[in-house]
Amino acid sequence: MNDIKIDFRILEKFVIDILCSAGIDRKEAQIIAKVMVWTEMIGRSGHGLKRLSIFIKRFKRGLINSPSSAEFKNKSDAVYLLEGNDGPGQVLGHLAMSKAIEIADKVGVGLVGVQNSNHFGANSYYNQLAAEANKISIVTTNSFPIVAPHGGMSPVFGTNPFAFGAPVRNGQSILVDFSTSGISGAMIRKAIADKRTIPIGVALDENGNDTVDPERASKGSILPMAGAKGYCLGLMVEILSGVITGSAISNEIGSVWKNFNKSNRVGHFFLAIDIPSIMPLEMYYDRIEDLITYIKEAKKREGVDEILLPGETRWHNYQQSIENGVRMSKNTKDELQSLGEEYKIKIPWKNKKS
Amino acid sequence: MNDIKIDFRILEKFVIDILCSAGIDRKEAQIIAKVMVWTEMIGRSGHGLKRLSIFIKRFKRGLINSPSSAEFKNKSDAVYLLEGNDGPGQVLGHLAMSKAIEIADKVGVGLVGVQNSNHFGANSYYNQLAAEANKISIVTTNSFPIVAPHGGMSPVFGTNPFAFGAPVRNGQSILVDFSTSGISGAMIRKAIADKRTIPIGVALDENGNDTVDPERASKGSILPMAGAKGYCLGLMVEILSGVITGSAISNEIGSVWKNFNKSNRVGHFFLAIDIPSIMPLEMYYDRIEDLITYIKEAKKREGVDEILLPGETRWHNYQQSIENGVRMSKNTKDELQSLGEEYKIKIPWKNKKS
Repeated sequence: MNDIKIDFRILEKFVIDILCSAGIDRKEAQIIAKVMVWTEMIGRSGHGLKRLSIFIKRFKRGLINSPSSAEFKNKSDAVYLLEGNDGPGQVLGHLAMSKAIEIADKVGVGLVGVQNSNHFGANSYYNQLAAEANKISIVTTNSFPIVAPHGGMSPVFGTNPFAFGAPVRNGQSILVDFSTSGISGAMIRKAIADKRTIPIGVALDENGNDTVDPERASKGSILPMAGAKGYCLGLMVEILSGVITGSAISNEIGSVWKNFNKSNRVGHFFLAIDIPSIMPLEMYYDRIEDLITYIKEAKKREGVDEILLPGETRWHNYQQSIENGVRMSKNTKDELQSLGEEYKIKIPWKNKKS
Repeated sequence: MNDIKIDFRILEKFVIDILCSAGIDRKEAQIIAKVMVWTEMIGRSGHGLKRLSIFIKRFKRGLINSPSSAEFKNKSDAVYLLEGNDGPGQVLGHLAMSKAIEIADKVGVGLVGVQNSNHFGANSYYNQLAAEANKISIVTTNSFPIVAPHGGMSPVFGTNPFAFGAPVRNGQSILVDFSTSGISGAMIRKAIADKRTIPIGVALDENGNDTVDPERASKGSILPMAGAKGYCLGLMVEILSGVITGSAISNEIGSVWKNFNKSNRVGHFFLAIDIPSIMPLEMYYDRIEDLITYIKEAKKREGVDEILLPGETRWHNYQQSIENGVRMSKNTKDELQSLGEEYKIKIPWKNKKS
């Protein structure tokens, strides 16, 4: 057996138990587990439970604080800054988007920047929080530099994901969430682990030559998605997440995986737009349905069964995870199991036919 | 002589005279001329003076109103909707971004949606307005559908440009402004006019096959930039500009160039973020300079002299236009000249050695 499937509630409880045993504040552990399991459920495992052991390792080294003593500061009605004090990214992200939603309820738009945070999972988790509160949202984060600027061959930007969310009547929000690089860091790491090559045209080796070898790419640089356009978007994400929040930017950020000398101090940007402040909610839903109809009814290219909306595959994965259990790779399962054994917590999939 | 160069002030006055003679409100003519000439100065002629005669034609047909009876509506402190009443896009855009700046001054962020507008020129004109007022900004607009969704082969979206601006101490703001399609509508039109081919992989013919023939592409569809990612961005632009503003969306929008049965009724989205509401302005400028240094000092690929910032080429063009005059193509010059003759206005480049 390679992959396993496990009930999401049981999995969440198991992750909370591990986090609490490792010394994480219980309330914060609940949020962290929720974000990690949700990310796994939608099929973005690169930002999911695979991150649990490195998270605990960084916490144990004093590079992540929990309980975080995060503090909101503000100078205007619609803009808040959350000083993250090296708290868990998931906790700070949750706090920040909740505040952005609260502000948007009052004045129509809420902007919250997070200073000095850590990896926060998949951006779209926070877009979905906003969507459930009838908000359209933008979420960005900067990250450890592995992406060269357009024309360059040494890293300046992280894969700097950009995300956008818009609610849909059936609850399966439109969720746009992509790295602004030609390939994500998670895919490079996966290709290394699986001993596979990466596509041509997405990365350079240390000498600036195209490479399909993920090992060499990780010593060289990743190219921006779509050339100059991806470079522009990655730069925008760096300004919104890093520059204006007072967080670390570009080469000031250390690798989550390799640098244990300093905290990450990445920044995040959350923007929530209250739909009823610009248009009655029911009218909005009708109009989104019209747009979805135009998209679904477009003529399809040969071999395409259906034109999918951004997020649609993730919602399918999510539904499957609820119905059949959350699918985890053997690696992730083994990592969780050894954490469980370390902290003497009952492993939920042991003594169970699988 | 093919191209000509002319002083930007003389050019602006000439355009104002043409617009006023055609019946456009004088105050509005000043804004329209300013946006069109600025766009020409930065080298984005596809959105510049080439649009003057079609603008006048649509105005004469009653499809554009001037003076526009545009009216702001609002339901919350930070969000306004501008009912554009088919006014000139440049005038509505100017009004809307000015209001977004004013709101951001009060509460930290300002969002203004524009309903039922027309083509407004280059998005980055409005980003620059915001940058001059110490605001970071996002500007989007929807447009006549010529772009297929990912997996599709018939148009659903416009080239839906996305733009971002961030001020820099020397005044030459970072200006990101790109279509979310593989190629812009202006480049397709230019390739048709110049009888040239377009690159492979950016457009399909009416049967869904790849094509390099711009004529066939204009009967088929353009592909999104970067596949699924460009589709996601184009969809986001459609939601922000069209759906939430109550404007026309997707197939409801007629071509600026070919459809004289109805007004365009496109929508725009303007977001202004007040920098001092999140960080002291001087600290922001220092941090942007740090980021620019990281970018400029990246190792360059072979054949690359300098890594450019988004907007840098445009600022170079702008400076050249101020020093040496605005360069116009023969086509644009001829169009302006025939408008000048029609309205019996002295042609500034006649009786002048050129």
